[in-house]
Amino acid sequence: MAHGAKGSALSHLECPKCHARSNADVVAQLCACGSPLLARYDLERVASSTSRDEIDARTDTLWRWSELLPVRDTANRVSLGERATPIVALTGYGARAGIVSLAVKDEGTLPTGSFKARGAAIGISRARELGVRAFALPTNGNAGAAWSAYGRRAGMEAFFAMPKSAPPIHRFECQAVGAHVTLVDGLISDAGKLVAQWVRERGLYDASTLKEPYRIEGKKTLGFEIVQQNGWSVPDVILYPTGGGVGLIGIDKALAELRALGWIGERKPRMVVVQASGCAPIVRAWEAKERASIMWEGARTAAFGINVPKALGDFLVLEAVYSSDGFAIAVDDKAIVAARDAVASDDGMLLGLEGAATIAAAKVLRASGWIAAGERVLAINTGSAFKGWMTPQGPLD
Amino acid sequence: MAHGAKGSALSHLECPKCHARSNADVVAQLCACGSPLLARYDLERVASSTSRDEIDARTDTLWRWSELLPVRDTANRVSLGERATPIVALTGYGARAGIVSLAVKDEGTLPTGSFKARGAAIGISRARELGVRAFALPTNGNAGAAWSAYGRRAGMEAFFAMPKSAPPIHRFECQAVGAHVTLVDGLISDAGKLVAQWVRERGLYDASTLKEPYRIEGKKTLGFEIVQQNGWSVPDVILYPTGGGVGLIGIDKALAELRALGWIGERKPRMVVVQASGCAPIVRAWEAKERASIMWEGARTAAFGINVPKALGDFLVLEAVYSSDGFAIAVDDKAIVAARDAVASDDGMLLGLEGAATIAAAKVLRASGWIAAGERVLAINTGSAFKGWMTPQGPLD
Repeated sequence: MAHGAKGSALSHLECPKCHARSNADVVAQLCACGSPLLARYDLERVASSTSRDEIDARTDTLWRWSELLPVRDTANRVSLGERATPIVALTGYGARAGIVSLAVKDEGTLPTGSFKARGAAIGISRARELGVRAFALPTNGNAGAAWSAYGRRAGMEAFFAMPKSAPPIHRFECQAVGAHVTLVDGLISDAGKLVAQWVRERGLYDASTLKEPYRIEGKKTLGFEIVQQNGWSVPDVILYPTGGGVGLIGIDKALAELRALGWIGERKPRMVVVQASGCAPIVRAWEAKERASIMWEGARTAAFGINVPKALGDFLVLEAVYSSDGFAIAVDDKAIVAARDAVASDDGMLLGLEGAATIAAAKVLRASGWIAAGERVLAINTGSAFKGWMTPQGPLD
Repeated sequence: MAHGAKGSALSHLECPKCHARSNADVVAQLCACGSPLLARYDLERVASSTSRDEIDARTDTLWRWSELLPVRDTANRVSLGERATPIVALTGYGARAGIVSLAVKDEGTLPTGSFKARGAAIGISRARELGVRAFALPTNGNAGAAWSAYGRRAGMEAFFAMPKSAPPIHRFECQAVGAHVTLVDGLISDAGKLVAQWVRERGLYDASTLKEPYRIEGKKTLGFEIVQQNGWSVPDVILYPTGGGVGLIGIDKALAELRALGWIGERKPRMVVVQASGCAPIVRAWEAKERASIMWEGARTAAFGINVPKALGDFLVLEAVYSSDGFAIAVDDKAIVAARDAVASDDGMLLGLEGAATIAAAKVLRASGWIAAGERVLAINTGSAFKGWMTPQGPLD
């Protein structure tokens, strides 16, 4: 199935900053102007050859969305069994917070225990299709776990730079599948500098967040699933724990494609960026009505997955928030842990700390009235609770 | 939907030892003769009112099998989003082991990170339906994690006895959702004695393995899924890491029900019990052609989930092995860890130690010729790799 009716409708790459178009069928990193590149599809072809009913009838894996994914040949698919993740109602916590319809999409049930599996499955599959044999990226842990697993499955060599303060399970995960892990005495931004040096010196494929165009295409399936699982409609509010922000950009891109296809109406969910008060560059930018963020000095939060002081795609994240009348909010670590414990107690569900941050934020936004009582609110639990509970200093209190 | 066409076809409870029948709609523990009780269904009603095509068309959650589950009223369903788990091909390891078709069913992707979610979802839902408010069980960890989460979601109080040598993450999981955890300086059999005392003294519902009839009904869905995902056929060999053995009994019961329904043919997969050489009571019994096992003294294995020195359902496990021309095999911890590392390296998939034991066993059984090269072999990875890697003494080497 190279370019068959149900194959990928990928047409070209496009720069969201300078609007240059480029060939999608060669290895690409950033645009010459420095911006991330986005994949574009022949949506007219998709609209005329596929229907929502047909999508509904397919097995609910990530690959159900094949026309809107960049992998052309099914032989290049690298899979560890990534199925649609469940949406779980938080009735107890929701009632206490005054939100009648509060639910969480549990990305911790994906292979490798986080939403990073989406980006890795598509990113690695497409990289294989384009002939990549070795890659590098900086990671706070879950991205490394996912990209090392999928990369190994594709027979690639993986090089990671990881903050040494990352939860120790991630070293275990990456090294178990044979990735080369270099620990960095610093933040993910420092790890990123090291990776940039490797890329320059060794000619490795740079799989850093948004430095190749296809990770986001995998993350996009998160948005597709939200819509399909809601009977082809969107919730009123989506809260997203924002580090690099690719999941949020992916949801936004997914919704735009579905609108263009006519598969959903024009109404957008209000997108909420949730960050930790110890590392909230995008919240600060949003509060100042800026289009981009600046590096957050001294970043520190127990929700390690969102300990990202400067995101390359910050301008896309902010655009998604502005264009949806969304919000950006920071919550402190105490509130994050308290939210995790409250959801566990009220609803028997154990969230990752990043996911717990969104739940803490939902309560604040309901109390302020920004979220109305009857609105349908969806929080994203980006990763398994089994990852962040043990820190290099021992169990998190 | 109390007794509607698509409601539960549960008809009665039956003792597999003394064959006594009893009422399924009151709280039940063991049979008066001391044996576990099994749930029985009106399979004729199911056969005449439901079809394989209808099952295929339903959303692939555990609840797709509602007619063959004991929960009568949908309002009593307690769910954390338990979807069908993926079957992942181990092409690389399989090739090296000489097994062309080797795959693993990844139960680590269920809520709470293990196959225990199946038994807890159904066990708790049915307990709620019967009015249970508090329960107790002994656990090596994953059962406690699952039953505490589902129990909390149902508003029940949970009391667990857990060996203090269990992986520390399990204490965190249970306590986070408000369960009462008592650590025991001994094995799960010692924990079981303590639970028996609580049950006697405090009148708690005994949710210990097979001491109530419904955990196995949840585990049964593992067998249903294997068949449905294989296009309504069975693999040639199923390898199961055996502690209490309820998953294996559940698969066996599922296949018997599907045969009775005429939804699969008479051919059985050969069932393989895999234990650790440090705790192999069922293997010892099988080698001696016994019908039941005796307590294994000094049980010890890093694959903590199968560190069960004596299983209450051992006779059912052994019967399933004998009646399917199966096998029982022990592998040592060194082989288990080596198999985990080999699968990670060959196929990019990180297994739990219990699942890794089945992969080690598959290689031995292929080398001996018991498994033929072209046979379809399915191994069960009962739990997430994120659980057992950290022991109370630190990371597992």
